[in-house]
Amino acid sequence: MRFVAWSGMMERPAATEPASPFRTARQREEDRLAKREAVLRAAVRMFNERGVHATSLDDVAASLGISKRTIYHYLASKDQVLLECVTIGLQQLLQAAEAAREEESTTKGRLVRFLRRYAEINMDDFGRCVIRTGEESLAPESRPRFRALKREIDDALRRMLSEAIADGAIAPVDVKMAAFALAGALNWPARWHSPDGGRSAEELAASLVDILLGGLLPRV
Amino acid sequence: MRFVAWSGMMERPAATEPASPFRTARQREEDRLAKREAVLRAAVRMFNERGVHATSLDDVAASLGISKRTIYHYLASKDQVLLECVTIGLQQLLQAAEAAREEESTTKGRLVRFLRRYAEINMDDFGRCVIRTGEESLAPESRPRFRALKREIDDALRRMLSEAIADGAIAPVDVKMAAFALAGALNWPARWHSPDGGRSAEELAASLVDILLGGLLPRV
Repeated sequence: MRFVAWSGMMERPAATEPASPFRTARQREEDRLAKREAVLRAAVRMFNERGVHATSLDDVAASLGISKRTIYHYLASKDQVLLECVTIGLQQLLQAAEAAREEESTTKGRLVRFLRRYAEINMDDFGRCVIRTGEESLAPESRPRFRALKREIDDALRRMLSEAIADGAIAPVDVKMAAFALAGALNWPARWHSPDGGRSAEELAASLVDILLGGLLPRV
Repeated sequence: MRFVAWSGMMERPAATEPASPFRTARQREEDRLAKREAVLRAAVRMFNERGVHATSLDDVAASLGISKRTIYHYLASKDQVLLECVTIGLQQLLQAAEAAREEESTTKGRLVRFLRRYAEINMDDFGRCVIRTGEESLAPESRPRFRALKREIDDALRRMLSEAIADGAIAPVDVKMAAFALAGALNWPARWHSPDGGRSAEELAASLVDILLGGLLPRV
């Protein structure tokens, strides 16, 4: 049972030991992670809305009703906050590639599933931050990690394209160019899609992927 | 004859009046425009390389061997410099749409020509700045003009797509979604294409447009 301080009294079964008023190491760690994540979520939304340069950790702290000193318990600097935000987004993209690989049996199925999730993630908070963040916004020492993760995702996409070409599921396109065209088309909603708009991220993603797979020229 | 101060002595034909040492109003205006353009070109390259926020007008001035005060003869503020840079890029895109309309006789020919030029411009200095500039980087009073010009380009692209669908040159795709997919795929090189790379902007543009027109699924 996951023990949460404020609900402990209600959830505790009658016949067991009374809950200790002291939190266990695990509870403290969970609490720390939840607070760290709340800071990152608040920060990423401000970065996306106002831009990284116009957002200070004071603003982020104020939006959570805490002080900047409290943020420093969890994250060392604004650059670390930004690097964590883009890392979360990039990890979501990598996980989407792995999930597509594990759960779809055909090369085309994997590609379509990955592309749709890729677009959806880029319309969500952390993915949006990945796209909106130019490398120059990160401290020089943070750039290699950002670049390495982006390269991993590009590699995953190129591998899926190569496999789909190899078994004839897609046409023998230039893999590097196709990966760039797909990534660009599916990154772009990070700049224009507003979650308040009419269509859901899932619908938009599916519609963009259909157009990219089918192309514009008529199929006779 | 275009009269330029430093070449005047050589170009002046023997039998005419000696050139006046005083420049005409037109010469002064040409000189002013050339200097203004040199400032914008130096600025746009720094914006693209370091990011707008990390570039000061002092840096731009230093790169031209002039003082910041000299820049203020031509442009009022860093925000005006940025707005002018993105406006030049957006005007190039609009001119590409007009040129395609005037010089190509088929709906498909116009679309292909516009898309290729669109991609090429976005790999060049001013187009690159359009793509790399989030609206939040501009002063609030400069954003409506930026947004209005972007909308004009989106409208031009959608109109070309609608016309090509109407006469059967392309498949009956969702015009809004197709415009987003195309724009995204052809904007993205602004973030990854380096002019020092192997392929030229023209080759890359043609290759991306081919993939987008043909799609990924095999044509049987």
